Amino acid sequence: MIAVLKPSVPLRDKAQLVALLEARGYRVHLDRTDGREWVGVLGDDVRGLEAELAAHPAVDSVRRLETPYALASRAFRPEASVVRVGTVELGGPEVVVMAGPCAVESEEQVFATARAVAAAGARILRGGAFKPRTSPYSFQGLGPDGLALLAAAGREANLAVVTEVVAPEDVALVAEHADLLQVGARNMQNFRLLEAVGAAHKPVLLKRGLVATLEELLLAAEYVLAAGNPDVILCERGIRTFGRETRNTLDLAAVPLLKQKSHLPVIADPSHGTGVRALVPALSKAALAAGADGLIIEVHPDPATALSDGPQSLTFAGFAALMDELRPLASALGRQLTPPTGSRA
Amino acid sequence: MIAVLKPSVPLRDKAQLVALLEARGYRVHLDRTDGREWVGVLGDDVRGLEAELAAHPAVDSVRRLETPYALASRAFRPEASVVRVGTVELGGPEVVVMAGPCAVESEEQVFATARAVAAAGARILRGGAFKPRTSPYSFQGLGPDGLALLAAAGREANLAVVTEVVAPEDVALVAEHADLLQVGARNMQNFRLLEAVGAAHKPVLLKRGLVATLEELLLAAEYVLAAGNPDVILCERGIRTFGRETRNTLDLAAVPLLKQKSHLPVIADPSHGTGVRALVPALSKAALAAGADGLIIEVHPDPATALSDGPQSLTFAGFAALMDELRPLASALGRQLTPPTGSRA
Amino acid sequence: MIAVLKPSVPLRDKAQLVALLEARGYRVHLDRTDGREWVGVLGDDVRGLEAELAAHPAVDSVRRLETPYALASRAFRPEASVVRVGTVELGGPEVVVMAGPCAVESEEQVFATARAVAAAGARILRGGAFKPRTSPYSFQGLGPDGLALLAAAGREANLAVVTEVVAPEDVALVAEHADLLQVGARNMQNFRLLEAVGAAHKPVLLKRGLVATLEELLLAAEYVLAAGNPDVILCERGIRTFGRETRNTLDLAAVPLLKQKSHLPVIADPSHGTGVRALVPALSKAALAAGADGLIIEVHPDPATALSDGPQSLTFAGFAALMDELRPLASALGRQLTPPTGSRA
Amino acid sequence: MIAVLKPSVPLRDKAQLVALLEARGYRVHLDRTDGREWVGVLGDDVRGLEAELAAHPAVDSVRRLETPYALASRAFRPEASVVRVGTVELGGPEVVVMAGPCAVESEEQVFATARAVAAAGARILRGGAFKPRTSPYSFQGLGPDGLALLAAAGREANLAVVTEVVAPEDVALVAEHADLLQVGARNMQNFRLLEAVGAAHKPVLLKRGLVATLEELLLAAEYVLAAGNPDVILCERGIRTFGRETRNTLDLAAVPLLKQKSHLPVIADPSHGTGVRALVPALSKAALAAGADGLIIEVHPDPATALSDGPQSLTFAGFAALMDELRPLASALGRQLTPPTGSRA
Repeated sequence: MIAVLKPSVPLRDKAQLVALLEARGYRVHLDRTDGREWVGVLGDDVRGLEAELAAHPAVDSVRRLETPYALASRAFRPEASVVRVGTVELGGPEVVVMAGPCAVESEEQVFATARAVAAAGARILRGGAFKPRTSPYSFQGLGPDGLALLAAAGREANLAVVTEVVAPEDVALVAEHADLLQVGARNMQNFRLLEAVGAAHKPVLLKRGLVATLEELLLAAEYVLAAGNPDVILCERGIRTFGRETRNTLDLAAVPLLKQKSHLPVIADPSHGTGVRALVPALSKAALAAGADGLIIEVHPDPATALSDGPQSLTFAGFAALMDELRPLASALGRQLTPPTGSRA
Repeated sequence: MIAVLKPSVPLRDKAQLVALLEARGYRVHLDRTDGREWVGVLGDDVRGLEAELAAHPAVDSVRRLETPYALASRAFRPEASVVRVGTVELGGPEVVVMAGPCAVESEEQVFATARAVAAAGARILRGGAFKPRTSPYSFQGLGPDGLALLAAAGREANLAVVTEVVAPEDVALVAEHADLLQVGARNMQNFRLLEAVGAAHKPVLLKRGLVATLEELLLAAEYVLAAGNPDVILCERGIRTFGRETRNTLDLAAVPLLKQKSHLPVIADPSHGTGVRALVPALSKAALAAGADGLIIEVHPDPATALSDGPQSLTFAGFAALMDELRPLASALGRQLTPPTGSRA
Repeated sequence: MIAVLKPSVPLRDKAQLVALLEARGYRVHLDRTDGREWVGVLGDDVRGLEAELAAHPAVDSVRRLETPYALASRAFRPEASVVRVGTVELGGPEVVVMAGPCAVESEEQVFATARAVAAAGARILRGGAFKPRTSPYSFQGLGPDGLALLAAAGREANLAVVTEVVAPEDVALVAEHADLLQVGARNMQNFRLLEAVGAAHKPVLLKRGLVATLEELLLAAEYVLAAGNPDVILCERGIRTFGRETRNTLDLAAVPLLKQKSHLPVIADPSHGTGVRALVPALSKAALAAGADGLIIEVHPDPATALSDGPQSLTFAGFAALMDELRPLASALGRQLTPPTGSRA
Repeated sequence: MIAVLKPSVPLRDKAQLVALLEARGYRVHLDRTDGREWVGVLGDDVRGLEAELAAHPAVDSVRRLETPYALASRAFRPEASVVRVGTVELGGPEVVVMAGPCAVESEEQVFATARAVAAAGARILRGGAFKPRTSPYSFQGLGPDGLALLAAAGREANLAVVTEVVAPEDVALVAEHADLLQVGARNMQNFRLLEAVGAAHKPVLLKRGLVATLEELLLAAEYVLAAGNPDVILCERGIRTFGRETRNTLDLAAVPLLKQKSHLPVIADPSHGTGVRALVPALSKAALAAGADGLIIEVHPDPATALSDGPQSLTFAGFAALMDELRPLASALGRQLTPPTGSRA
């Protein structure tokens, strides 16, 4: 529930209102939109408060939320949020491409990839150091060493860095090295992890779970927001359906629907969304046309030897060609995509 | 299995080969690609024939098909097929938009819609006369009267006409009035109907079933092709998944995947694919960017009073605005979209 | 909507009420429950009638239906319906097992199977003569010859006969030979076919579509009931999900849920429901425990050479063993299962 | 890969073999079946070892595993495993029922429920203290206080206790209070948590994820087993499908399929599997008939006021009635179910 305050309410009255609500077990969020101060009141049974709030001397009007999430909703914040990752802005006019290997495998691999994707116009380097793997016997990532390599490669290529964090106890370490903390699809409802990244001082890339509804995704984002971190980017990465001809089914209706329901930036992952290299270009274009604020794409120097996700990884040449195809499309959609380095020089 | 013939094989030898194969129960298809004649041999156990065919004096080389469908496959026909619907070509450089009401409801409704969508740049008028409805108590369409109205409205507005046929016994009647025979999602595996439209002399728009794999869709197309009708257009119209926030999940990876596997044109239906009017524009753009050869979109003079599918139908103004958004996108993708009538005049 | 009539309403008043309703386009159904006569009024916009009906002199009280289907609902007919197939009753205390090959392949095959399943306690012989096949190049069934063989084998073994009908034009022929007309999963929403079997004078076995909700299944049943055929048996045969380790996912919650929502008998098909022979016994038992009124099971003299569905077919010995396992279970559930012939003699 | 050792191999040779394998990065598991010692060798690329192992002087024969999991497979351990939870045995002839509230809400609630379910024949008390909730604003459980209440209620009623653990850092605390550590569906692929419960000295109840294949479930079990904890119980609790008429789709084919693929005990959760109280009895019976080694059922003194999962919770009377229905069924299936206390006294 949102209580819009009267103009010029004395601070004491506001403090009294907040204290009253918190004493009853509600979470309270103070904010200002278009010059008007308002109080968001969050809790399971908030509807019972409506009459009392409306009658409070500090309150001008009361508005119910139609959704179980609040901070993530457009009703709470009608304008689109822009999230800064290093020096890159997501949710603004630029379409931001994140690219890199599924997993950091070696210094040579990650530095070469960073240079190649930067040259083609990517702004953020992706790469896994802690890999959640279905089998305990599969390569689990290089861990802290992988983090350090990724961060170094990003610095050299002038790219911000995104990597996955898989447990609350790793958040501090990952936040030291990464500009953007990824919560993977399998952890979308690992609520302890959501609270931990919510307490971190880095933005969060939250991937939709394999079988999560959009409401569940937005409630997962709400965990992060409610823990105090306002910088969440949502990611559609494919859902699991009966289909067997692609690894997942990229649900592109999620892109405009999330942007209608929420003010948060939304990107798409055509690599996991299809699992098939030859489909990544078409789905990258489709995601932009659907309104995505960015893409996250797997690129590897030699996909055939990749330790994970080789079949869905683009080569350097394939990635550069895709970026060249995306630029006129971005323009036709009224957005910009970073030009390749050569043409920038 | 494909047997490429030697150059200049006498007709008698070819006839003998065909007779031999047919006598054993195979279906045989004679064709020519890039100046070389070949014979397609179709049947459940065709692999046992390989050595015998290769040794036949008329045969130059033999190639196995990797897929259970043959006539529908790219291996059979490497170049893209262009299907003519009236004077419109699908599968070529033009992006073709089909638009109109879910159901033909009245003369006024269908004529007004035909004029509006033609003015905005649509090339084919859609409208249901025989409506397959989940409930026996729902409006089932105007039947033959609806067909006649649809055809008349198409003629007046200079639009080809597509409408659904739901039973073999109706094929002749529908083919009299329509330029394109639609087989709906619920009938994708109504094999008698597929055989009936396969024997008709009008092209067929075949919609993917709610839970059909792409292989099943291509095998359904194969029923039509094997019955002698080479003109099939495939349509991705959304699949049924766990998602509850849209009517269906539009599986846009199907578009490039079908075009890789098959030479047939592929269009998308963002109206049924989402079930939500506000999502139709974003998904229309995404479908084009994914490589669709066309779109089929529901448009109604007054969606609030539509007898079916109102929530997903665009208004005339909404449709015209969408077409204006699609044009620069089509250009950026290297394709064309018919301009609005005003600018054509 | 249901209008319960006053006791002793003169026939003229009832006729006048029915005529009035039919003149306005409603379908009307007259019936009697526990000695009280009632009129079911069916149509899209029936709710607007409520006040008028309640005020009619022949009407005692009016009750809305909560469901879009009417004749199929428990609200319409609170007691369980018993459907007779030949001399067998479905929906009563007996658990009825239908068994036989996927397809009728030869006289020898179908007669041997009929004897074997009858000896083990099956009551109805299944077997396909018209086979809907995903590929046009697969075995499509023996057609009319298969029908005649199946009927003859049933007569010899004293079994009723069920077989699939795939097109309206075949209904008369199939009804001549079969005691129970099966509408397959792919045709659950082939509404012309539903109407055709609704006009036949044989009971109908209606299989749930691969991705049909229970409401859609009951609306499909409603098509048959509304066309005048009161004898419909519902069949849960597995739905298509993300799962790849079985052919389908047998949704056994559908059994009690259908029985709560509807008065119609419900059976289960563990053969198509799993696609795996080794799972058929466990799922057969589970289906009975869930409350199924019967089972339909594929049995073949030599599954390894079956022309279709071999991997899910039981051998004769496997079927007899399963029946022996089912008997104590049926007793524990308070139901009966026909004993094997040997013990009957 | 499994290397069966020759009889009477000296300890030194065994140690040398293990050291050799570990030095190359493989995980090694030593075990004995039917008097023969064998070595399980686990790792991504284990197949390359085959020839070398077969030639090793300590090795008698080498057997490949067909599955990506090893310790969880029937091939590794052909006989069924029995897991002890307190004094209760799962996987043996007894069918074990776990029952209790979704969440521990108060001392009164949990003690009353413990007494009621014990009296009806349950052996293990369930109840959540740490609740993973979709919304951050929903009741999250009583935490450590809830654990203590649950443990005390279990002791008083002579029931073992199962409760969920949601984060690695809580495992020690939960293991102090509970006899069985539950890993919930949302955490089935929280690999850090799996490793943490793998290092604990209490058995683990591992629930299938909402959209997990059985192979993924068995690989999740493999994480626990490979970390050194041999006591894992698998639980089918319903998958997410297109179905909207139940909360989830209980996939009962998973029960026999898991028991074929693995030696681990398998139970079913008809409460979450359906989400509908009225369906719990039928699905409980079906799960037993499908071969489940036990059930986990939600029971609440007053479901209408439950803080979570009220609609799927049984009342005390409903639970007792269900247990009475299950007993003859268990007997017919050749298994036992604990009689109610009254009859035991």
